[in-house]
Amino acid sequence: MPEIRQNLATKEWVIISTERARRPEDFKTTQERKPLPEFSETCPFCPGHEEMTPYETYVIRDRFNQWKVRVIPNKYPAVVPEGTLQFSMDGIRRRVTGVGIAEVIIESAMHNAIIPNMPEQDIEQIIATYRERYIAAEKDSRVKLVMIFKNYGQAAGASVEHPHSQLIAVPVVPFNTRFRIEEAMRYFDETGECVFCKILAEELRCGERIVVETGSFVSFVPYAALSPFHMWIVPRRHMGAFSQISDLEMCDLAKNLKLTLSKLYHGLNNPDYNFMVRSVPVKESDREYYHWYITIMPRLTRQAGFEIGTGMSINTSFPEKDAAFLRGIAVR
Amino acid sequence: MPEIRQNLATKEWVIISTERARRPEDFKTTQERKPLPEFSETCPFCPGHEEMTPYETYVIRDRFNQWKVRVIPNKYPAVVPEGTLQFSMDGIRRRVTGVGIAEVIIESAMHNAIIPNMPEQDIEQIIATYRERYIAAEKDSRVKLVMIFKNYGQAAGASVEHPHSQLIAVPVVPFNTRFRIEEAMRYFDETGECVFCKILAEELRCGERIVVETGSFVSFVPYAALSPFHMWIVPRRHMGAFSQISDLEMCDLAKNLKLTLSKLYHGLNNPDYNFMVRSVPVKESDREYYHWYITIMPRLTRQAGFEIGTGMSINTSFPEKDAAFLRGIAVR
Repeated sequence: MPEIRQNLATKEWVIISTERARRPEDFKTTQERKPLPEFSETCPFCPGHEEMTPYETYVIRDRFNQWKVRVIPNKYPAVVPEGTLQFSMDGIRRRVTGVGIAEVIIESAMHNAIIPNMPEQDIEQIIATYRERYIAAEKDSRVKLVMIFKNYGQAAGASVEHPHSQLIAVPVVPFNTRFRIEEAMRYFDETGECVFCKILAEELRCGERIVVETGSFVSFVPYAALSPFHMWIVPRRHMGAFSQISDLEMCDLAKNLKLTLSKLYHGLNNPDYNFMVRSVPVKESDREYYHWYITIMPRLTRQAGFEIGTGMSINTSFPEKDAAFLRGIAVR
Repeated sequence: MPEIRQNLATKEWVIISTERARRPEDFKTTQERKPLPEFSETCPFCPGHEEMTPYETYVIRDRFNQWKVRVIPNKYPAVVPEGTLQFSMDGIRRRVTGVGIAEVIIESAMHNAIIPNMPEQDIEQIIATYRERYIAAEKDSRVKLVMIFKNYGQAAGASVEHPHSQLIAVPVVPFNTRFRIEEAMRYFDETGECVFCKILAEELRCGERIVVETGSFVSFVPYAALSPFHMWIVPRRHMGAFSQISDLEMCDLAKNLKLTLSKLYHGLNNPDYNFMVRSVPVKESDREYYHWYITIMPRLTRQAGFEIGTGMSINTSFPEKDAAFLRGIAVR
C-alpha cells in the first residue's frame, strides 16, 4: 500500500508511490551531455570576457592575480538595487517595489569545472563567497530574505553553461518561509527543541537515510523526500542563519557538498539539479528554533496537475533505497 | 522597476520581472506537435481496447450505446481504494496509509479530440462526469480532499496522448490548502466578505485582466499571476465546493472553458498546460468564505532554484498584457 509521509518541519505531505515505484538505478539519466571545453570564446563568464558582464561586486584572486571566484550583478535582475521599499494596498492590488539584490557567483574561471571534480579548497572559496555576499545582502535594510541557489543543467533552469550560482535578496518574507518558522516555533514551545536538530538526531540514530557524514555536516534523504534523491545537508551545530557558519564549518561543508554531489554525479550519470541554501529571514538569525540547511533537488521527474493543485508530492522512489544506493557509490 | 505582487487570497508573492519581460507573442510555442489520428491501434483508451484498462466505474453512452466519457481506476494509482485510514506518529516518522481514489476520466472516444475543437455538449458531459465522480469520492469517509486535474502535453506531465483528465482523492488536507482556508476565514471575519468573491468583483470592475465572461463564469489572468498566461476561471455564484455546481452552471462552464482554452490554443500555438479544479476539503462545503475555481497553468517556463527555494514566482510577462493579448484572439 502507498504510504503518505509528512515532513515534521515543513509539514509537506508526500505520497511514496509503491504502485509506480522504480528502482534507484532506473533514475540514471540517459541524456547525452556534450563535454564542455575549458574555455569558450563566446562565454561571457570566461576569463578575458569580463567586459561582457557588469562590474564585479566581489572577487577572489590567486597569487598570480587571476580571479578564481567572481561575483557580478545579474544582467537580467529579478529585483533591482536602486529604489525605495514601498508597500502599497489598493483593494486587491497588493504590491511592493521590486528592490533587492540579484547577483551571479561565477564559481570558477574554467568553463567546464564541476563541483565533483574541483579541489576542496576551491569549493571552500565558493562557500566563503556565499557567506561574504550573504552578509553584505543582510546589511541592506530593505532585504528580508536572502536566497542562494544553483541551477545546474537545462532541466534545472540554467541558461548559461559556465559554472555559477546565484543570490537573490528580496524585500518580503514569502508565506511558506513564514509558515515553517511558525511551525518550528510551535514545536519549540511545546518540546523545547529545534525541530531541525530533532530531525537530524533521529536520522543519525536510525541511519538508513544517511548519505554522507562529515565532521560538521550530514547529508541525508529526508524521511518525507519530495522527489527521487531529494537530499538535505544539515549543519550539526544549531544555527538559524547561513551567515553564522564558521571558517572550520566552511571547510567541512566543502567536503560534504563535494562528496554528496559526487555520489549523485557518478550514481545517476550527471543529472541536472538545483540546490538552495534555506536560511532564516534576516534580523531573525538568533532564533533558537530555526536552522539553516541546504536542499538538493535532482530534476529527474516533473510536477503535474496533482502536485501543483494540492501542494503535495508524489515520490516514485523510496527514500531508504535512494540513500542506500548513494551510500554504495564509491567516490575518491 | 520590477513589481512584487501578492495574491490577496493565496498570499503568494510573484515578481513581475520588467528586466526579463517578454511580449505575449514571444510565448508562442515553436514545438512541432505531430497531428494525432482519430484512432490508435496501440492506445489503451481508444474504443475496442477496453480490456486493456481496469473495469469502468462510470460511463456516459450515446444513443448507439457507444461510450462518450468513460471513467476507470488508474492502473498505477497514487493512492489505493482498499485499506483502512491510519495515522501514525513515531518520532519524526509521521505517516498515513495511502488510501483514497485515483481515477482516469477518458474525455472522448476520439484519440485526437481536444477541448477547443469539441462541441460544447461533449465538454458539458466531461464536466458532468467530474461532478458525478467528485460526489462519489466525497462519500468515502476516508477522503479529505478531491483534486480533479488535467495534464495536457509532455511538459505538463501527461504520459498518454488520448484526451483524459484525472481525479485523485486523498486522506489528508495539505497544508497549503489549509493555509488558504485560514487566510480566507480571517478575511471573512474582518470584512464579512468571501475573498474570492471580492477578487472577482474587483477584476470585473477593473476589466483589464478579464479573458472570457460568460453567464455564470469569468476567466481572467490574476493580478498576481504566477507565470505567463496563468488563468483562473471563477464561478460568479459563491460556492465552496465544486460539487455544488448546478446543471445550468455546467453548461456555462463548458462554454467558458472551451472559449478560454481556445484562446490559449490559437494564441500560443497549442501549448502544454495543466488545469486543476481547486475546491474546499470535503465536509467543509458550506464555508461562506471559500470559493472553488479552476486554475489553468500553461507550461511555458520552468521553475528553478529561486522559485523552489522561496515559494515565490518570477513572472516574465505582464498579466494585463497577457489578458489583452488573449482577448484579442478571435475564436469561433
